[in-house]
Amino acid sequence: MKFATLNTPEGKLVALVNTESAQFWPVSSLIPGFDGDMVQLVHVFHEIKDRLTPTGAGKPLDAATVLAPIDQPRRNIFCVGKNYHEHAKEFSISGFDSSAKEGEHAPEAPVLFTKPASTIIGPNVKVPNHAGVTSQLDYEAELAVIIGTGGRGIKKADAYKHVIGYTIVNDFTARDLQKTHRQWFLGKSLDGFCPMGPYLVTADEVDVEHLDIKCWINGELRQNSNTGQLIFDIPTLIETISAGIELQPGDVIATGTPAGVGIGFTPPKFLQSGDVMRIDIDGLGTLTNEVQ
Amino acid sequence: MKFATLNTPEGKLVALVNTESAQFWPVSSLIPGFDGDMVQLVHVFHEIKDRLTPTGAGKPLDAATVLAPIDQPRRNIFCVGKNYHEHAKEFSISGFDSSAKEGEHAPEAPVLFTKPASTIIGPNVKVPNHAGVTSQLDYEAELAVIIGTGGRGIKKADAYKHVIGYTIVNDFTARDLQKTHRQWFLGKSLDGFCPMGPYLVTADEVDVEHLDIKCWINGELRQNSNTGQLIFDIPTLIETISAGIELQPGDVIATGTPAGVGIGFTPPKFLQSGDVMRIDIDGLGTLTNEVQ
Repeated sequence: MKFATLNTPEGKLVALVNTESAQFWPVSSLIPGFDGDMVQLVHVFHEIKDRLTPTGAGKPLDAATVLAPIDQPRRNIFCVGKNYHEHAKEFSISGFDSSAKEGEHAPEAPVLFTKPASTIIGPNVKVPNHAGVTSQLDYEAELAVIIGTGGRGIKKADAYKHVIGYTIVNDFTARDLQKTHRQWFLGKSLDGFCPMGPYLVTADEVDVEHLDIKCWINGELRQNSNTGQLIFDIPTLIETISAGIELQPGDVIATGTPAGVGIGFTPPKFLQSGDVMRIDIDGLGTLTNEVQ
Repeated sequence: MKFATLNTPEGKLVALVNTESAQFWPVSSLIPGFDGDMVQLVHVFHEIKDRLTPTGAGKPLDAATVLAPIDQPRRNIFCVGKNYHEHAKEFSISGFDSSAKEGEHAPEAPVLFTKPASTIIGPNVKVPNHAGVTSQLDYEAELAVIIGTGGRGIKKADAYKHVIGYTIVNDFTARDLQKTHRQWFLGKSLDGFCPMGPYLVTADEVDVEHLDIKCWINGELRQNSNTGQLIFDIPTLIETISAGIELQPGDVIATGTPAGVGIGFTPPKFLQSGDVMRIDIDGLGTLTNEVQ
């Protein structure tokens, strides 16, 4: 199943989406009484999923605006850094990673930071350029995991049982701030710095360990990898985080970006106003955003 | 004024507190119709503050349990690292700071990271020791700023207008995780790792740039400094964060800890089960927590 958060003539709602027929069915029309957002849908998904069958005529998707599927997470998004070998290497040698050990490319354990909800924007929304605050804008195409069932002390073998589905995020970054402030949070967290979407695609629909992930800038293919290349896989990330932090339904974990970001080039290719970023992950759709 | 979040026989509520008479008045008893938590009180504070005068007999504070004043922030707490000179030095030479530049003690810009709401516990609640996940527990006494009026692009000269008040936090840390995972988030964010309280003390009650801050472990004075020793003062922190992140009412900014933490000693003095941490900041009260 694919779910979207939509702005429609009837207001903002969550909907079941059929991308082939380009139709949607508000969850409230399938589950009378449901009036929640995507996080609330995640909370009750296991109870109601058997009733989430499209009935009647769907509404045309092109009459709605697709927002970020989880546009109001209840706490900051969990993000993983340096989680593809070639990217870990390009970042370490770029000089922009103030936490890299001399000569070490791949981290010995997952590197975790966060982005607040105020970073999240939907597909086709312009990413604010924050002129005057940063002049080194960069893109990062990433697979994001959405937690369905919470828990603490989740073991790798059980980890996928806690995942409801996946989406795409662009872990947009101000490289100058990321470097100057040492910890990455500030450079990762300016308002609008997390394009997300288009859909929450349930886990059963994708072979998550073998998904091509690609990113084009103005049509030029810059990132081209596969989720099979993750240094720390999804079960490892869930086990690592949940060891001491109880995961909650609706938590989002951005799993890291592959090689090919702007600072991987010499000289770095920072984004400019008007640049168009297009990210595609097998089965998850396409996330396109322009730089303001 | 001092405000507390309390568990009372009538339920959980926010209250105006008189610490001298050890009494409290539920805000709902002074402002009919108010039914919110502390963040919601912060949102309406400027509209209702003139009516927040204790009327009638207060209730005895010892019949209630004082919780963390902001026990459910709407996003992760903003935290500042290495923001007192002597602490920045002790941390850099301890070997536990994987983001320190060789030979550099004080950061060139504020170092920012976050802790999720799930870290927050109230006064006198035991801090979970997370045995099996970490074996290097450490304390950090800190002044926390609570944002009253939100905003972006706040300049230093206007910064204090956006502060409603202050409280104490203990930026509890798993030093092994902080080091191994490079970015500090994970080691700072295990469940229960942010004791906070006892009160939100409004800004007019304290001379915030000249407050003694002290921390005792089992009665031994370990940290003893003054908020005048901050490397980056409160206006600088607010200007830095709000340049690209719109601050929201109820946001919490933990301003960093002075020298004297466990890793400042050789060998390090990590906390053990049963150790009692007591933090005192002039005018803000005392925050005491035992390690589980």
